[in-house]
Amino acid sequence: MREVAIIGIGQTKVEENWEKSIRQIAGEAVVAAMNDAQRNTADGLFVGNMMSGIISHQENLGTLIADWVGLKHIEAVKVEAACGSGAAALRLGLYAISSGEMECAIVVGVEKMTEAKGSEITAALATAADADYEAAQGLSFVAINALIMQRYLYEYGWKHTDFAPFSINAHANGLHNPCARLQEPISEKEYHEARMIADPINLLDASPVGDGAAAVILVPAALPSSNGKPNIKIIGSAGATDTIAVHDRHDPLWLAAAEVSAKKAYSQGGVSPQDIDLFELHDAFSIMSALSLEACGFAERGQAPRLGLECQIIPKGKIPISTRGGLKARGHPVGATGIYQIVEVVQQLRGEAGETQVEGARIGMAQNIGGSGSAVFTHILKGD
Amino acid sequence: MREVAIIGIGQTKVEENWEKSIRQIAGEAVVAAMNDAQRNTADGLFVGNMMSGIISHQENLGTLIADWVGLKHIEAVKVEAACGSGAAALRLGLYAISSGEMECAIVVGVEKMTEAKGSEITAALATAADADYEAAQGLSFVAINALIMQRYLYEYGWKHTDFAPFSINAHANGLHNPCARLQEPISEKEYHEARMIADPINLLDASPVGDGAAAVILVPAALPSSNGKPNIKIIGSAGATDTIAVHDRHDPLWLAAAEVSAKKAYSQGGVSPQDIDLFELHDAFSIMSALSLEACGFAERGQAPRLGLECQIIPKGKIPISTRGGLKARGHPVGATGIYQIVEVVQQLRGEAGETQVEGARIGMAQNIGGSGSAVFTHILKGD
Repeated sequence: MREVAIIGIGQTKVEENWEKSIRQIAGEAVVAAMNDAQRNTADGLFVGNMMSGIISHQENLGTLIADWVGLKHIEAVKVEAACGSGAAALRLGLYAISSGEMECAIVVGVEKMTEAKGSEITAALATAADADYEAAQGLSFVAINALIMQRYLYEYGWKHTDFAPFSINAHANGLHNPCARLQEPISEKEYHEARMIADPINLLDASPVGDGAAAVILVPAALPSSNGKPNIKIIGSAGATDTIAVHDRHDPLWLAAAEVSAKKAYSQGGVSPQDIDLFELHDAFSIMSALSLEACGFAERGQAPRLGLECQIIPKGKIPISTRGGLKARGHPVGATGIYQIVEVVQQLRGEAGETQVEGARIGMAQNIGGSGSAVFTHILKGD
Repeated sequence: MREVAIIGIGQTKVEENWEKSIRQIAGEAVVAAMNDAQRNTADGLFVGNMMSGIISHQENLGTLIADWVGLKHIEAVKVEAACGSGAAALRLGLYAISSGEMECAIVVGVEKMTEAKGSEITAALATAADADYEAAQGLSFVAINALIMQRYLYEYGWKHTDFAPFSINAHANGLHNPCARLQEPISEKEYHEARMIADPINLLDASPVGDGAAAVILVPAALPSSNGKPNIKIIGSAGATDTIAVHDRHDPLWLAAAEVSAKKAYSQGGVSPQDIDLFELHDAFSIMSALSLEACGFAERGQAPRLGLECQIIPKGKIPISTRGGLKARGHPVGATGIYQIVEVVQQLRGEAGETQVEGARIGMAQNIGGSGSAVFTHILKGD
């Protein structure tokens, strides 16, 4: 099994982009990544996307984007795993290279959401949950997360404000990321006073949706660098699922699929949580930051808020998270998010993260979550 | 790169199935395939599906189905390439095995369509075309194929009735397939007099949609058979794309992506069209049978109808097609079709095809087409 490396990255700003179609947004990220890699061909294109069929009335995205960027006749498919679609596409692009079937693969995550009405987006997001037993009861995605957070506060005795550091850190970091949707810091007071969405989740616990695309170029790791930048190796890559409905879980406060995929990735990379220099986690809601940190072994069960309160999650902390803004501030164009995370880890490992650079970052991890922890993909990357 | 084999197959009858949800239909095919393979675990699940988000308000199908069949924590994703989604999922399952990442993978194609209104299905199918430049102009899928067929008749001088053998053969074969949606023979007179849909495509040129699922179990080919049945090796597997819009093609009567993917698959398998004992092609419309036969080298350009008129496409002919009914009679639950084709080729290579068994079949080919020839996946299978 060949080791795989990332040699190029590209991304668009996450925003409301009514001027451009989904193919244009995806195309911009692909072309940026190919320019970064100094490549103009590839053997295959893997597109992570969740809701183009519902929102843009466009499926067959693999073909659409390959055609648009002029990669004539290459193989191209779309991969969907709800909000985990981006990293799911990366997994499959990785297979294509590690199997020897391809020598160069493009993976792009793209989502165009804001042209739809809010209620349509909420309905589209709810397709990630169990349509028959959750969504049909009116349980939206934020409502599911609110139930989980409510239970977490009750079970472990934390107050809502103890989650403030997750959002404050994300916004502080997003301020320095030109691709972030929200480039503005927030205070603890603002967090505390934000408008309630679904008790206890308020506006500043939730990530904003948006339009955006991010792309990476994969090649065999043994290939010498051709663009003067270090090859970033993927030393761990794993996916796992859990029950689709939260009510079917023995413990709704434990992300079993996150644990399974992280443990596999650690084992593949021969590393442990102590070796991880930064962690781009799936902070769609602040409660998810806590659960992800616990499932991946960075905090004891029920103790993740302490990491925030003790300033361990900032770029200079023990386990920096959301270093480019995370879903919370960079934004969450759902099918694209998993690739934004990878692009951001690559920036850190290349030393290109500017004001929020994690000093001496050598090993970075990204975890992309689909559904309510029901489809989870973990990647561990290593710089030179 | 490890060779990959199919050791189990399962399928449900293609029908209007309002009693069962999409997870139940998919689950039945998966369990049937696992029973056939005498396996009760797997490392991953790859789901081919096109329109569950639009029709059933359910995405995250990988998780949904893995959860439903009780394959706790395995990796699972959905793969979409319009009507080519089934074979696209097979390609990725194959990568997972050939790379050494997995030792056993399940690939299931599933579509549940008939609970939606006809106009909704037409709109959902149109998401396979170019939403901005074809569908937005009111060009439905049948309309695109009608334009192509019209041009074919004009260009090569055939009459509409010259296409009758494609539909007659499919129905004659479907009669003997208990999983076929239409188990009834048709006559040339019926073909000729069928209700017009989009001139020159009439009702008996077009395949019926339906609800259904088909599944296969993949393992490394070197693994000894554990169920007393021969391992069916995948000796060729390739995907290719073309422009998404037909108007962007130099020649709208040539399926370039079908040609590219078939040539790659032939080369991988070390075979040529002469070696293929049967060909499950993508006869969504009869014109597609002709174009697929030509692109894959079974007929000269513009000459495919001759194969039908000379009785070469029946099970005893030179190049039997649609041997279990094809899309035309077995039915076309779009994201499932590519796996139905593979299941049918395996039946032939195992000698399990009953009345429509192709005598001495050793090498079979399947070609699954997404969009108007815009995403094409070709597989070549070999029995013992």
